[in-house]
Amino acid sequence: MKRPELHALLQEVQAGRLTPEAAHDRILQFLRQAPFEDLGFARIDHHRSLRQGFPEVIFGPGKSPEQIAAIAERIVAAGESLLVTRTTQQAFEAVEARIPGAVFHELARTITHRVGNPSPGRGTIVIAAAGTADLPVAEEAAVTADVMGNTVDRMYDVGVAGLHRLLAEHCRLVAARVVIVVAGMEGALPSVIGGLVDVPVIAVPTSIGYGASFGGITPLLAMLNSCATGVSVVNIDNGFGAAAIASSINHLP
Amino acid sequence: MKRPELHALLQEVQAGRLTPEAAHDRILQFLRQAPFEDLGFARIDHHRSLRQGFPEVIFGPGKSPEQIAAIAERIVAAGESLLVTRTTQQAFEAVEARIPGAVFHELARTITHRVGNPSPGRGTIVIAAAGTADLPVAEEAAVTADVMGNTVDRMYDVGVAGLHRLLAEHCRLVAARVVIVVAGMEGALPSVIGGLVDVPVIAVPTSIGYGASFGGITPLLAMLNSCATGVSVVNIDNGFGAAAIASSINHLP
Amino acid sequence: MKRPELHALLQEVQAGRLTPEAAHDRILQFLRQAPFEDLGFARIDHHRSLRQGFPEVIFGPGKSPEQIAAIAERIVAAGESLLVTRTTQQAFEAVEARIPGAVFHELARTITHRVGNPSPGRGTIVIAAAGTADLPVAEEAAVTADVMGNTVDRMYDVGVAGLHRLLAEHCRLVAARVVIVVAGMEGALPSVIGGLVDVPVIAVPTSIGYGASFGGITPLLAMLNSCATGVSVVNIDNGFGAAAIASSINHLP
Amino acid sequence: MKRPELHALLQEVQAGRLTPEAAHDRILQFLRQAPFEDLGFARIDHHRSLRQGFPEVIFGPGKSPEQIAAIAERIVAAGESLLVTRTTQQAFEAVEARIPGAVFHELARTITHRVGNPSPGRGTIVIAAAGTADLPVAEEAAVTADVMGNTVDRMYDVGVAGLHRLLAEHCRLVAARVVIVVAGMEGALPSVIGGLVDVPVIAVPTSIGYGASFGGITPLLAMLNSCATGVSVVNIDNGFGAAAIASSINHLP
Amino acid sequence: MKRPELHALLQEVQAGRLTPEAAHDRILQFLRQAPFEDLGFARIDHHRSLRQGFPEVIFGPGKSPEQIAAIAERIVAAGESLLVTRTTQQAFEAVEARIPGAVFHELARTITHRVGNPSPGRGTIVIAAAGTADLPVAEEAAVTADVMGNTVDRMYDVGVAGLHRLLAEHCRLVAARVVIVVAGMEGALPSVIGGLVDVPVIAVPTSIGYGASFGGITPLLAMLNSCATGVSVVNIDNGFGAAAIASSINHLP
Amino acid sequence: MKRPELHALLQEVQAGRLTPEAAHDRILQFLRQAPFEDLGFARIDHHRSLRQGFPEVIFGPGKSPEQIAAIAERIVAAGESLLVTRTTQQAFEAVEARIPGAVFHELARTITHRVGNPSPGRGTIVIAAAGTADLPVAEEAAVTADVMGNTVDRMYDVGVAGLHRLLAEHCRLVAARVVIVVAGMEGALPSVIGGLVDVPVIAVPTSIGYGASFGGITPLLAMLNSCATGVSVVNIDNGFGAAAIASSINHLP
Amino acid sequence: MKRPELHALLQEVQAGRLTPEAAHDRILQFLRQAPFEDLGFARIDHHRSLRQGFPEVIFGPGKSPEQIAAIAERIVAAGESLLVTRTTQQAFEAVEARIPGAVFHELARTITHRVGNPSPGRGTIVIAAAGTADLPVAEEAAVTADVMGNTVDRMYDVGVAGLHRLLAEHCRLVAARVVIVVAGMEGALPSVIGGLVDVPVIAVPTSIGYGASFGGITPLLAMLNSCATGVSVVNIDNGFGAAAIASSINHLP
Amino acid sequence: MKRPELHALLQEVQAGRLTPEAAHDRILQFLRQAPFEDLGFARIDHHRSLRQGFPEVIFGPGKSPEQIAAIAERIVAAGESLLVTRTTQQAFEAVEARIPGAVFHELARTITHRVGNPSPGRGTIVIAAAGTADLPVAEEAAVTADVMGNTVDRMYDVGVAGLHRLLAEHCRLVAARVVIVVAGMEGALPSVIGGLVDVPVIAVPTSIGYGASFGGITPLLAMLNSCATGVSVVNIDNGFGAAAIASSINHLP
Repeated sequence: MKRPELHALLQEVQAGRLTPEAAHDRILQFLRQAPFEDLGFARIDHHRSLRQGFPEVIFGPGKSPEQIAAIAERIVAAGESLLVTRTTQQAFEAVEARIPGAVFHELARTITHRVGNPSPGRGTIVIAAAGTADLPVAEEAAVTADVMGNTVDRMYDVGVAGLHRLLAEHCRLVAARVVIVVAGMEGALPSVIGGLVDVPVIAVPTSIGYGASFGGITPLLAMLNSCATGVSVVNIDNGFGAAAIASSINHLP
Repeated sequence: MKRPELHALLQEVQAGRLTPEAAHDRILQFLRQAPFEDLGFARIDHHRSLRQGFPEVIFGPGKSPEQIAAIAERIVAAGESLLVTRTTQQAFEAVEARIPGAVFHELARTITHRVGNPSPGRGTIVIAAAGTADLPVAEEAAVTADVMGNTVDRMYDVGVAGLHRLLAEHCRLVAARVVIVVAGMEGALPSVIGGLVDVPVIAVPTSIGYGASFGGITPLLAMLNSCATGVSVVNIDNGFGAAAIASSINHLP
Repeated sequence: MKRPELHALLQEVQAGRLTPEAAHDRILQFLRQAPFEDLGFARIDHHRSLRQGFPEVIFGPGKSPEQIAAIAERIVAAGESLLVTRTTQQAFEAVEARIPGAVFHELARTITHRVGNPSPGRGTIVIAAAGTADLPVAEEAAVTADVMGNTVDRMYDVGVAGLHRLLAEHCRLVAARVVIVVAGMEGALPSVIGGLVDVPVIAVPTSIGYGASFGGITPLLAMLNSCATGVSVVNIDNGFGAAAIASSINHLP
Repeated sequence: MKRPELHALLQEVQAGRLTPEAAHDRILQFLRQAPFEDLGFARIDHHRSLRQGFPEVIFGPGKSPEQIAAIAERIVAAGESLLVTRTTQQAFEAVEARIPGAVFHELARTITHRVGNPSPGRGTIVIAAAGTADLPVAEEAAVTADVMGNTVDRMYDVGVAGLHRLLAEHCRLVAARVVIVVAGMEGALPSVIGGLVDVPVIAVPTSIGYGASFGGITPLLAMLNSCATGVSVVNIDNGFGAAAIASSINHLP
Repeated sequence: MKRPELHALLQEVQAGRLTPEAAHDRILQFLRQAPFEDLGFARIDHHRSLRQGFPEVIFGPGKSPEQIAAIAERIVAAGESLLVTRTTQQAFEAVEARIPGAVFHELARTITHRVGNPSPGRGTIVIAAAGTADLPVAEEAAVTADVMGNTVDRMYDVGVAGLHRLLAEHCRLVAARVVIVVAGMEGALPSVIGGLVDVPVIAVPTSIGYGASFGGITPLLAMLNSCATGVSVVNIDNGFGAAAIASSINHLP
Repeated sequence: MKRPELHALLQEVQAGRLTPEAAHDRILQFLRQAPFEDLGFARIDHHRSLRQGFPEVIFGPGKSPEQIAAIAERIVAAGESLLVTRTTQQAFEAVEARIPGAVFHELARTITHRVGNPSPGRGTIVIAAAGTADLPVAEEAAVTADVMGNTVDRMYDVGVAGLHRLLAEHCRLVAARVVIVVAGMEGALPSVIGGLVDVPVIAVPTSIGYGASFGGITPLLAMLNSCATGVSVVNIDNGFGAAAIASSINHLP
Repeated sequence: MKRPELHALLQEVQAGRLTPEAAHDRILQFLRQAPFEDLGFARIDHHRSLRQGFPEVIFGPGKSPEQIAAIAERIVAAGESLLVTRTTQQAFEAVEARIPGAVFHELARTITHRVGNPSPGRGTIVIAAAGTADLPVAEEAAVTADVMGNTVDRMYDVGVAGLHRLLAEHCRLVAARVVIVVAGMEGALPSVIGGLVDVPVIAVPTSIGYGASFGGITPLLAMLNSCATGVSVVNIDNGFGAAAIASSINHLP
Repeated sequence: MKRPELHALLQEVQAGRLTPEAAHDRILQFLRQAPFEDLGFARIDHHRSLRQGFPEVIFGPGKSPEQIAAIAERIVAAGESLLVTRTTQQAFEAVEARIPGAVFHELARTITHRVGNPSPGRGTIVIAAAGTADLPVAEEAAVTADVMGNTVDRMYDVGVAGLHRLLAEHCRLVAARVVIVVAGMEGALPSVIGGLVDVPVIAVPTSIGYGASFGGITPLLAMLNSCATGVSVVNIDNGFGAAAIASSINHLP
């Protein structure tokens, strides 16, 4: 049972097309299911969609293609949309064998399969990336935001060393309801964008760079110390996390 | 000129009570002012309120009481509300001498003076703090959120080592539109709260603790690695920054 | 000579079934053996079992399968139980060729072969793990605790982001005599469990995570800064060490 | 109501000297009290003693002498023993004015006042310290262990650079039920002691040292990497925490 | 003997107004002076001006006012200009007592006394600073560059969060021969400026900021990882060093 | 249109061989081209050469051989010189297939193809390297400086542990207009050279070394703390960056 | 009983002037004294001089002037020489009141009082210091080496940025039996000296410097990574430790 | 020309068997050789043996087998002994093809070929290693010390967790003229040994360990903070460096 279903059920009651007793029974029936389905190596949370607005997401690392496919199959069987992150071509082949129509986003290293239509967000999420090397993380965010029902506007290769590329996109930036900014190296882009917009900016440091970049520590620290108001930060390379927060903001009524 | 004034002006035009020409003149007159007023030691941004929804905020450290008072006086003179952060009793005395009615929030180390009514936020911002030692940072967030026009719900001393204290507040938590979580030591509270709500959680690590707490690095790292979806992070002790982001989310239309 | 044998010998003397002189001779005979058996590349400590309650444990890394098998053979030949940690399938095959019946625990990456019955612990050791990725470390602890004679109660996938999963196990938790808590990412689980029980909690940070997890430094720091009383910490991924401490506590008379 | 009181009550029932109904009423009466007493700046947990075996402890830093005295007074008024850590002569004077007979342990920087007799531990806790500069931390542990009902055996100035000083105490060491080892500089003492005993060793790094000691990071890391089995670690300078764990072990039935 | 004097001497020879023998004698006479004058607590390098184009500079920390004044007096007595960095009002008073006319630059914490005219640089050195808190470091650079004979153009409070302030100064920026950029917090300004100019950019991180700024490590790392070409970096707060490099570039023939 | 072309055009106007109108048209025609050519995975900046004196440089990591070859082809087609850094034999083969005559510098891991003659630098750039292991970075600098039109003087294997090797090259050192110093391990060479010359020194730390070298952090820190005046620093292993700065200095009029 | 006394005693026996029995009695009488004298707050090791060649040294920090004076008095009373390190003028006054003739070395922050003549070292210990700010550490080494019986040759202000100052002292350097090198900032001096001599070099990093010097971490790392053979390192600012090692080398027979 | 040859030559002169003129000619003839032989990729220092007592040593990493063999051949051709460190079986095969009789020390990863007899050291160098995993580093030290002419006494597997193993070797320890101590994990062994002997102790941290060992940082820090007098430290895993220092001490006259 997803949120729209629960909402529809209660509207049926309001409209007099369903007795409170019948509705009560159907809700109880759902709740009576164990909240977790135990596969031995994982417990799938089937109430997540109702509680948090999106079903459980499969984090790929440390799971075999077969395990990922097995979990994916149960999620889709429960009528939920599928999202697998940090995954591989091999895992995709195992998933596709069980779920025809699943899509592999190679650059984003994610698998999706949409079941039904997600509740749409209220505005646009702009995803800005400083350099081409940041695209895998930016695309993880874009695919996540999309499957969660948001309109996404990609704005790539707008790093601060060539400011005219960013300033040329000023209109698209100020039209956003949330902005995700993905950057490695010195991580300056969120500060510049934070000074141009008045909506929330979610900064994602990437492990792009070399030498004293230290696998993303440098942009992480730079973003935490941003002189611009309105910038909050997620873990290094965490495109999924940024998109989930942005989607949560974009779905606030 | 603040946003509500601009909005009212345009409504006057729409209602036919003001000619477009007259409105045009008044807007130009405002824009003709230099966007910065230069005091020698600082440039005050008088367009900030129009661009970003709240006037410039004075960050106290490195400024003398006299300098703070001088900047404060110009902000209030321009018809804007005042917020000074990380400040002292001495600075307050200098400010009060020029701005009777200014308020000093001792625990939060901030000075405020409200001019007019800020545009109200749409929902409630819950501010949860793990321990009593985190209160200065939590109060900085609370005062900031309040002066920016938000309804604030304080939930203090709800650290994870006594979980029943937090679980008892479950209803207040799920009623929030945004949650700010302030914690030092092991920084676990945002993860627990992130698992209980589906709205954005802004985590603020504090420099509270000793030994291997390293002035807030430990909770900062813990929060960045939160296993809960929906948690973003700001700089150590940055209560102001968290509140500004929360207010920006809470004012999304 | 293991502790139970020494104990039995002394009881024989007390019961008058053995003269002190005969007992004295048998103890001397044992002590006359060199305390170390030198294999060239390693010195096996055959008095360890008497001194510390469990025979020498083989730490796998840096040793060839043949070397591990050779040491293992001598330990079992001396009538002791075998435990090899951080080992591989190849090493197991070499060991099994010499010690039929040895067992390979794949997930835990350990080899065991029990000789006789270890002295039983007094209570139960609960091993809680935050996520499925923490299982190899948790299983290393579980296998170690088991071979040392303890009753083990596994409680996996109870991370703090879904608190109801942990709270549902409250009864099992408070029934423990010692709790081992294994967690990566933000390492918050020991703090939450530490607040629910009043027995010793041994926290094991794992190198699970990415970005600012830094190979386990983040949960290590978080656990050292736990706001809960009763939590002590071992090295990153050190499931064996945690179990040895827990067993030592569980065998206190 | 403390644990011995609850135990005595139940024995009365068993002995037929108290009806189950009367006992039931008295337990309910206790539970009916709010579990927290709210002083505005702190919530005192009056059920802590029943749940965890020792009443709430006051951590001094960040609290004024008056606040400490006020909390202390309520704890003693509830019939509980008092322990204040990391405190000062000034705070002691404020406490003593309200609680005549309270004791200030200058070297340990703690205040205690014992109410009734704590349940005695089963064995002895040895507290070993490497150098004289480690004594404040060692004494914090000693005072804590003592007020919690344990027999304490102090073994100071036994650093590894003069091994004969430690070896001369071998008999006292092996007689311990738990050993707390306090050391700064290179933090080697827990490894040496861990090799000599088979009971749990709680290692406390101290911030003693200079240069590359980094305020205790060096001994902290050394202790986490101890080559001896049976050593777990607490935060830098956390004598209280080590003693609380040791006491919890020493009170296991 | 300073460079211009040596140059003039050789021109005299070329012009036939001085015999080579006489010139030879005067050069030898200068070289016969010990290259160092030993004051006991310091050795003053009187050939520095000839070798490197500017006389020895006094680094204030760790020297008493009297020591600074004594060294200063000998430098001026040798006909050289004086520069004291990281110094105090007290030191200035001691210096002024011996060298009337010396100037104290309070914000820059430097003392100067110009003797003769330095060889002028070829172009302008722009010194850009991100925020008002960076001014002490920026002024140390400005005073140093000025006393070394350079034209300085100050451009303060042009941080990246308000980009229009920087873009408004585009003409002054591209007119520079070298740019010094002083910034704390996230240290993004050198990257933005590096993308706008094609002359060398010397970046100076400052210890301004709090929390995860770590005393300037964050901007230092950000500057080292700048995505703009042409940016090199000096030590945290090292305004003097940046100006000395800029002056050396500006004096290249 | 490159800088020499623009310069020649303006000279034609001055000489009366071209009307201002015709020159105006040709400049406009160039500016009318889109400043970026979008290949989908990259935007090539064709105005870079005019703005910054050298065309866009291709940074190899994260790009496939085919992508590198495609970008390279467009740069050369636009009449610009080619520089690819941090690249491989495979990428070179793809480039050579499209651009016959391109050169692969194996030790420097760069590809170059010169189109026309770059504007020559005014003096010599000395590139000093401490050890043979630093040569890949030194050669990246040398190839970069060469393709940008500079005269390069290589001075390799002159580490400070055998000072006579460096002092023997004193004459070549003082003849430089800029010095690039490449060193790993303790990074002392820039300090020694900085004391011998009065021109700008660009220090490049390398990731050469082991143990406490930490992938170049040790020489990076040492160089930032150089006691010599005139030393600025670039990122670890950033030979390209150092050469670009040196070339910019060497091309100052 | 010091080493020379023991040696003389045995020579008396050899010469027939003392019976073995009498010598035996005197040695036993000495050994019968408790090896430690317990003052409550410290245990003084009176056998140290016999075992390690120099009596116990008092490390000042954390001891009151009265405690230092009390320990000092007992050491001198036992006929040993006195050395107090990291101490103050106040402590000296307390010591002098009990031990007339004790000497305070202000710059070295040490107190000495020589009793008898120490066994002389075989050669000279050169102590080289890079800058004047390193003198307190260099002097701690010099005073220590002197009181332990070594000939000391001070060579101060010979930092690598002015190499001629060091090279001028080449003869004194190669005449040393051991060299102690004290340096802060980039810590390059030991590498340069290590390449000039073939005797052991003890490197002492100092906490001198600012910014990215990190309280001595930078020179510490640089010294550990020295490209010169023959350099070993002690803790930051540990002049005493370096001198004790140098003296031990200089006293090898 | 090696040191013994120079010594013999001068004795011939003293004995009247060689005229000073003839000796002068032979010395000049040697000095006339270029001090470096340039192979293109390396400069071989043929005067090293005379200056520092041992010929140049080949550090293997970053050199191809062929390069190593070529350099090795020239060293041996010059009549010097050969030492290659951090090398491989492949490099050995290339060396052996040119230098029959060269020896590969597999555990120590070194190649040696002794030419003539080195000058013998005066005493014994004890090499103590804490665990079997430290043997590669210990053997690198042992092979180095041996080829440099020292008597080596290996004392392996004497870690502090089993102190009786070390104490049993007390006599061998105190007979040493220098002690090298190799240890990973908590690095405590040098402190314990430093308290037992009065000769110089060279501590070598190893990268053995896991988790918070950080590739040898933990034992490095522990050794630098040793509470024992007489311990100096070299880089992580630097067995060669420790042996070179020990040999230099052992060859002091």
